[in-house]
Amino acid sequence: MITAKARAVDGPDQSFRAAEIKRRDLDLHDVLIEIKYAGICHSDIHTAHGEWGPVNYPLVPGHEIAGIVTDVGAEVSKYKVGDRVGVGCMVDSCGECENCRQGEEQYCLKGNVPTYAGVDKYGEPTQGGYSTHIVVTEDFIVRIPDNIELDVAAPLLCAGITTYSPLNHWGAGPGKKVAVVGMGGLGHMAVKIAHAMGAEVTVLSQSLKKKEDGLQFGADHYFATNEPETFQKLAGNFDLIINTVSANIDINAYFSLLTLDGTLVNVGAPGEPLSVNVMSLIGHRRSFAGSMIGGIRETQEMLDFCAEHSIVPMIEVISADQIDEAYQRVLASDVKYRFVIDTSTI
Amino acid sequence: MITAKARAVDGPDQSFRAAEIKRRDLDLHDVLIEIKYAGICHSDIHTAHGEWGPVNYPLVPGHEIAGIVTDVGAEVSKYKVGDRVGVGCMVDSCGECENCRQGEEQYCLKGNVPTYAGVDKYGEPTQGGYSTHIVVTEDFIVRIPDNIELDVAAPLLCAGITTYSPLNHWGAGPGKKVAVVGMGGLGHMAVKIAHAMGAEVTVLSQSLKKKEDGLQFGADHYFATNEPETFQKLAGNFDLIINTVSANIDINAYFSLLTLDGTLVNVGAPGEPLSVNVMSLIGHRRSFAGSMIGGIRETQEMLDFCAEHSIVPMIEVISADQIDEAYQRVLASDVKYRFVIDTSTI
Repeated sequence: MITAKARAVDGPDQSFRAAEIKRRDLDLHDVLIEIKYAGICHSDIHTAHGEWGPVNYPLVPGHEIAGIVTDVGAEVSKYKVGDRVGVGCMVDSCGECENCRQGEEQYCLKGNVPTYAGVDKYGEPTQGGYSTHIVVTEDFIVRIPDNIELDVAAPLLCAGITTYSPLNHWGAGPGKKVAVVGMGGLGHMAVKIAHAMGAEVTVLSQSLKKKEDGLQFGADHYFATNEPETFQKLAGNFDLIINTVSANIDINAYFSLLTLDGTLVNVGAPGEPLSVNVMSLIGHRRSFAGSMIGGIRETQEMLDFCAEHSIVPMIEVISADQIDEAYQRVLASDVKYRFVIDTSTI
Repeated sequence: MITAKARAVDGPDQSFRAAEIKRRDLDLHDVLIEIKYAGICHSDIHTAHGEWGPVNYPLVPGHEIAGIVTDVGAEVSKYKVGDRVGVGCMVDSCGECENCRQGEEQYCLKGNVPTYAGVDKYGEPTQGGYSTHIVVTEDFIVRIPDNIELDVAAPLLCAGITTYSPLNHWGAGPGKKVAVVGMGGLGHMAVKIAHAMGAEVTVLSQSLKKKEDGLQFGADHYFATNEPETFQKLAGNFDLIINTVSANIDINAYFSLLTLDGTLVNVGAPGEPLSVNVMSLIGHRRSFAGSMIGGIRETQEMLDFCAEHSIVPMIEVISADQIDEAYQRVLASDVKYRFVIDTSTI
């Protein structure tokens, strides 16, 4: 077994502490990665706080992982020592179901193996990226292009693919009007990616506080949703709305902003069910959809797209001792726009 | 003005009574239709009972209209006296907005003019098909193919197009698994049409009472939704679900029956908002959509499709004196599968 240093929580109300965890010895297709940076995703907080169901503590979160390959299993063919690589929200799947065969491993019919708070095929609990090392099968690793630094690469593995995938799937591009709801970690990536895809991009944020940033990220328009006239002004305007807000918003008001055949895609799920007025869908053949991260092939495609278009997240690098404080700041929306842990400080 | 005999209601709790109504004199593009048959749609009941907002009584419902042209305006080019024609849920629209120009007049951005309980461009209230005559602009009239009798043609103008349009839009056809929720007026048409399109069709009905009919209409499978194992058995099974039930069902249970990228389309709207668990959409990139009737061009296409495939609804023809009783029976789901008024009895 390989010993790694990590930061772990022991319960929903606990602070992070230094920990040692075990990583499995390399199986034939396993890759040992020395983690350099790990992003902090809102999902980490939900999970650490036990808000998404029971958790087997201690828990090491982190599914935005960027690092360097330091060892490979006997039959690994895709990566070699020294490669710059990333790991996202999942580390395995059945590989055999219809969805896996289509390269949509995130929708594995047997359930993908999440990077943390899951159970791997060896029956062991998975532990995430707030750690110095991780062992992952080569099929769930992606290559980080040379012109993307590892610190800014990390958030692409969740925030990047989570927004790229629906923008790609629903055809954001020239001639398409795309709105992004929320200007946080996911939202700011959605703006950059949709802009690079050629779409006309509008940010719908609670206030105009981040307007300057939004326009710099590539938004063509920026509206405050706390101004009721926003909804009148933009009625029937968008082909696609990416909703990055997990809070329970008045989703019907957002449906009214869709054009005929428009789609609103939620990439996060509020804790409570949403109240949907079906007439607001029927009236213009609108769709309400959900999307979850992306497959491994598409994650590589996203990284290559970001490299080609020089897209990286705006981040704030922190040390391992600042994780608790960072969580508080994420909850207070006080982050521009993603915290990334320098794992050399763990 | 043209005088027509009709059946009207004077308030939400009133019975139907004989009435005389006025139809406008023919404008340049108007067509006078002698109505032969008018279907009874659940919408008629909702509207007559004032359940869909305030109504200007007296009201003459009816938007499943089949008849014969008896006079035409000076510049009418599409129809001539003696033609067999139909009128559906709308009798006009702005004709100029983006949606109208696409032939999707039902989604007219200024609002289409409904066949009854609306206001036409002359400022007059519209009155529907429970009547001997109606005047409609030629652009909102469709031709009934020779091999479809007028009595069975009538329900195609709403129940037919309401189900044909989403089946067509979302690509029901060979290799696609389609489920139809509800085996009423709309549901039985959805089964026939989806089967004719080549899809594998499953009916999801409360019980197995109408199973024999469903299989005869072309369903390949028939399940009772009051048996909980139905939802386990069919999990992740359907590419497309057409929900014809307007009651407030547990929509999340139905989402779970969709495959990756599957879509559930509501063609009716429950009075109360539906409680949507967003995770059930996100988990397999599913969509929840709405669809409302169809455009005029598509309505003609539907009639031609039904003619080609010998598809007609199963109906029970009634006299005008039986409308109140028919309403009661529709509310009790005691109809196989559409009541059609013989308007010669009005």
